Amino acid sequence: MAEQQAKIHAWQGVSFTGVTINDEFWLPRLKVLRQTMLPDCLSKCEETGRIKNFAKAGGLLEGHYEGKYYNDSDVYKVLEGIAYALMSERDARLEAEADRIIGLIAAAQEEDGYLCAYFTLENPEGKWTDMEKHEMYNGGHLIEAAVAYYEATGKRELLEVACRLADHVDGVFGPGKRHWVEGHQEIELALVKLYRVTRAERYWKLALWLLEERGHGHGVGAIWDNPEWGPAYCQDDVPVREIKQVTGHAVRAMYLYTAMTDIVHASGDSAYAEALHRVWTHTVERNMYITGGIGPSRHNEGFTSDYDLPNETAYCETCAAIAMVFWNHRMNLTFGDGKYADVVEREMYNGVLSGISLSGDQYFYENPLASQGGHHRVPWFETSCCPTNLARFLPSLGQYAYAVTEDGLAVNQYMNSEAELVLASGLGVRLKLSTRYPWKGRIELEVNPAASAEFSIRLRMPEWCRGYRLEAGGARIGGAGALTDQGYLVLSRHWSPGDKVVLELDMPVNIVRAKPEVEADRGRVAVQRGPVVYCLEQTDHPGWSYDAFSIPAGATFRVEHLPELLGGVTVLWSQDEDGRPLRFIPYYAWDNREPGFMQVWIREREESGLYSF
Amino acid sequence: MAEQQAKIHAWQGVSFTGVTINDEFWLPRLKVLRQTMLPDCLSKCEETGRIKNFAKAGGLLEGHYEGKYYNDSDVYKVLEGIAYALMSERDARLEAEADRIIGLIAAAQEEDGYLCAYFTLENPEGKWTDMEKHEMYNGGHLIEAAVAYYEATGKRELLEVACRLADHVDGVFGPGKRHWVEGHQEIELALVKLYRVTRAERYWKLALWLLEERGHGHGVGAIWDNPEWGPAYCQDDVPVREIKQVTGHAVRAMYLYTAMTDIVHASGDSAYAEALHRVWTHTVERNMYITGGIGPSRHNEGFTSDYDLPNETAYCETCAAIAMVFWNHRMNLTFGDGKYADVVEREMYNGVLSGISLSGDQYFYENPLASQGGHHRVPWFETSCCPTNLARFLPSLGQYAYAVTEDGLAVNQYMNSEAELVLASGLGVRLKLSTRYPWKGRIELEVNPAASAEFSIRLRMPEWCRGYRLEAGGARIGGAGALTDQGYLVLSRHWSPGDKVVLELDMPVNIVRAKPEVEADRGRVAVQRGPVVYCLEQTDHPGWSYDAFSIPAGATFRVEHLPELLGGVTVLWSQDEDGRPLRFIPYYAWDNREPGFMQVWIREREESGLYSF
Repeated sequence: MAEQQAKIHAWQGVSFTGVTINDEFWLPRLKVLRQTMLPDCLSKCEETGRIKNFAKAGGLLEGHYEGKYYNDSDVYKVLEGIAYALMSERDARLEAEADRIIGLIAAAQEEDGYLCAYFTLENPEGKWTDMEKHEMYNGGHLIEAAVAYYEATGKRELLEVACRLADHVDGVFGPGKRHWVEGHQEIELALVKLYRVTRAERYWKLALWLLEERGHGHGVGAIWDNPEWGPAYCQDDVPVREIKQVTGHAVRAMYLYTAMTDIVHASGDSAYAEALHRVWTHTVERNMYITGGIGPSRHNEGFTSDYDLPNETAYCETCAAIAMVFWNHRMNLTFGDGKYADVVEREMYNGVLSGISLSGDQYFYENPLASQGGHHRVPWFETSCCPTNLARFLPSLGQYAYAVTEDGLAVNQYMNSEAELVLASGLGVRLKLSTRYPWKGRIELEVNPAASAEFSIRLRMPEWCRGYRLEAGGARIGGAGALTDQGYLVLSRHWSPGDKVVLELDMPVNIVRAKPEVEADRGRVAVQRGPVVYCLEQTDHPGWSYDAFSIPAGATFRVEHLPELLGGVTVLWSQDEDGRPLRFIPYYAWDNREPGFMQVWIREREESGLYSF
Repeated sequence: MAEQQAKIHAWQGVSFTGVTINDEFWLPRLKVLRQTMLPDCLSKCEETGRIKNFAKAGGLLEGHYEGKYYNDSDVYKVLEGIAYALMSERDARLEAEADRIIGLIAAAQEEDGYLCAYFTLENPEGKWTDMEKHEMYNGGHLIEAAVAYYEATGKRELLEVACRLADHVDGVFGPGKRHWVEGHQEIELALVKLYRVTRAERYWKLALWLLEERGHGHGVGAIWDNPEWGPAYCQDDVPVREIKQVTGHAVRAMYLYTAMTDIVHASGDSAYAEALHRVWTHTVERNMYITGGIGPSRHNEGFTSDYDLPNETAYCETCAAIAMVFWNHRMNLTFGDGKYADVVEREMYNGVLSGISLSGDQYFYENPLASQGGHHRVPWFETSCCPTNLARFLPSLGQYAYAVTEDGLAVNQYMNSEAELVLASGLGVRLKLSTRYPWKGRIELEVNPAASAEFSIRLRMPEWCRGYRLEAGGARIGGAGALTDQGYLVLSRHWSPGDKVVLELDMPVNIVRAKPEVEADRGRVAVQRGPVVYCLEQTDHPGWSYDAFSIPAGATFRVEHLPELLGGVTVLWSQDEDGRPLRFIPYYAWDNREPGFMQVWIREREESGLYSF
């Protein structure tokens, strides 16, 4: 792609607090989150000593630090999830438990603002010596939790802890002070959030300084000493504005790009913008799985070489998929292009969602695209970043649905929802979106501006969709009435309360082939319908052996919605080359029944194309 | 494709007399046929002396033969069309005119059965000397008209003329008699029809003998003397059972294969069957346009080299597209595979239909896939095979809708229709099919067997369709309930009067790319929705210049039905690379407004695929 400077739009995000989800697909998952995931994550944090570590560091309890040095972050992420959950629905018991934990966290903070239970308890001399020890990573998650909890409850205690920590970091590091290349990015994006809630400019300047520290040889610690990793592992190989390619640990890379995008959104920095376009293209063109998964290698939890996308050994960490949402959401707001919201969608319905069982208490850390039957979700991990990332991701889903544009609003994700937006003009607009997405392509949007007014509504045209029909204000859109701009249908018109838009997206079964460079998928096809990627599971094909079947070229699929299966899924029926029935289920729903093999990329029976075209 | 012996099914065709078309797409065309095309073709035959030639040859009128030596055939074809039209709706005036013409034809027949007005009038010594002079070709069309007119009216006069001619031919040619390689095939398939109505075996044996004459060096006449043509021009280069590749004049080739398929249907001849599979694959894989058009070259009105499919100079004779229907219809009946009915569909909605104007009085002989603006339909041709072929094709459309299979019935073409079938078991079944095809993919079939019974209904799954939903007898088809066999969904069950089947075919906009071997289409895409191939016309894009635009990769299309445009069409809106609106109309409907350029294959803006897959 020619590297052309994309215009910076700087759309505004719509907080999920302004969005109520009433969706038959997502609502059951949000219920499971409240009823199972959050309580379960809290119990696990308690049982594994993660919460007690704060009490110990605060002198409220005797004993040594338990677990990994980055375990504080899990508690913060669960708190962040609780905050989001409380914003949708207050829950006194949950809030009281959160307040109790926040008290322990506050107790664990040192006088100077330092906060990292591991170092306080076990290695106070080692503070700020090894840049791979996640002190700022932990701090970043503290800040995110604090901002969320403050916004949810109005309570300032955790926010003040976070500010003290941020100020401590700002006192130790920065221009004329000490260098620091944080081994695991996270605090940078968190500091931007802290800036937004406090309006204290030093926070976003600190974030920018931290970004700028990278790529100049300042890194010291376990990463840099490890010859198999080196600085590229944590994106310390080049200055960020010179980034050309995605590299190293996937989650770290995505958190870095997320923060860089926040900076462009705020400052319009063109060098950052160009670096982001380069690395985004490199990521999605050559290093992303059809599920949205990224980072094929367990070795570095990250990237290897272009088009290296093995299926059985695909690492595809759940956190990396979530981080892709963070990054692409901000890219969408910053550059106003629907292609980023397309990636958000791909992650939501595939690479992220596969991370959690339907029951809400079992998790994948790795999300391979094929399995011989040995890969299964488990209740918790020693390094449990993925469960706690899901616990904060799911309750904040609503924020991805809409955006406020320069001249109106954009609908990014199609879910049954009601939303309250305030346009750039100051006009309030209530929206009601009705759909059976992702199973049906019909979308009805009711538009209720506070007063009749001229503005534009952008409806994302998903990249998997070729054809659509559109009505607005009761009339079919005729002629060249609504055409696409940067992946959106744009309806610029006078809107009155009660106006309706009906968008019908063709939602065919798409047969997908990988680029020929992807060796792992040569001679194979994947099946996608709407945003949902499908797979075959052994339990639907008893007696079959792994990879001993193929699908004929030009196969057709019967589309059947089964409300009782796997929480309600649309399945696709086809036939293998011997006429045996194949039943495809959504990839996200695999490993929720009897164990067995699974495949996304199915061998295709070779046959030259029937026609000349 | 491995050359495997396909099973011979020998399904039975369902005469269009058993099928009433009530279709919003086809019915207006059938009305135009009655009101304009048939009267117009009759007038043209009269004005150009085609009808008078018979009167002159019969001694009823003085004067020389007018026009081409094959002009008799046009009169026969119009009579055949009149016969089909009369079968659907009697029309005394039309029938009286037909009877008058039949009287002239009968008068023109010589004592010994010979009938070819040109030779009788101008060159009686030259009879049966030049195999390229279409004497048998004319005779074949006489026979087809005679069979149709007999079936329509019960009147035997023309049938008797046809039998006398066939017997004359049978007396002059055959084993132990004279050799003959008819330059323009046609009589072979006609003789099979004559056999079916008379049950006189000598007719189909004569057809078989004529087929077997080819490829042995017996050809004599203008073709064989012309160094640029030679025997391959009329498929006289190899014995028919050794045919490997499509060659020569397209209409002649198709009529040949049609007759060969009739032979396989009747006799099961495996050498013929294998030759047909080879040549069919060679035709559609390497020598067919997306419109179903065949025969790229004006020079030989036929085939050149594999993948030579130029767009502006595409010859694609209307008659060749019609002949593809004849052949593929018979292939479908003989081998029970939906892929042949797919080709019938492709021709019906594209390569055949483009041959006639919406007004019904202007014709294309050639059907290019691109034009700079100079190609237009005209009212008639000196060689007017195409108008008269359309005049007999359209009123017989109903015959392509259904077939009777070994164990039930097949629905081949989806059009609003009512049909009366008699299954192989003797059971009568009335069908009522409701659809808005080709614009909508929903198809409702009401099944009314004379008594409840077990049989199978096969529904063709069009090759352009990947996904579908199916209900039968009020219940969604669950599990592996209906899977595909040779391109059909097969519903084998107990059927009771009033049972309903609902099939919903996904009808997305498909972006089509040619095989890389097709040089003319490299870097270009075509747009197809359902069975309809689309094009761009200049009149919708004022001020644009030919080929100075391109379509972005991954373009999306707004689907809009415009009942007032071009007789009611679904148009597709998209945008070119500069954001200017593109309006695609069905290819068949081009050149019905202001003259201007037209393109089917549009340049695609080059861009590497967005994702790794």
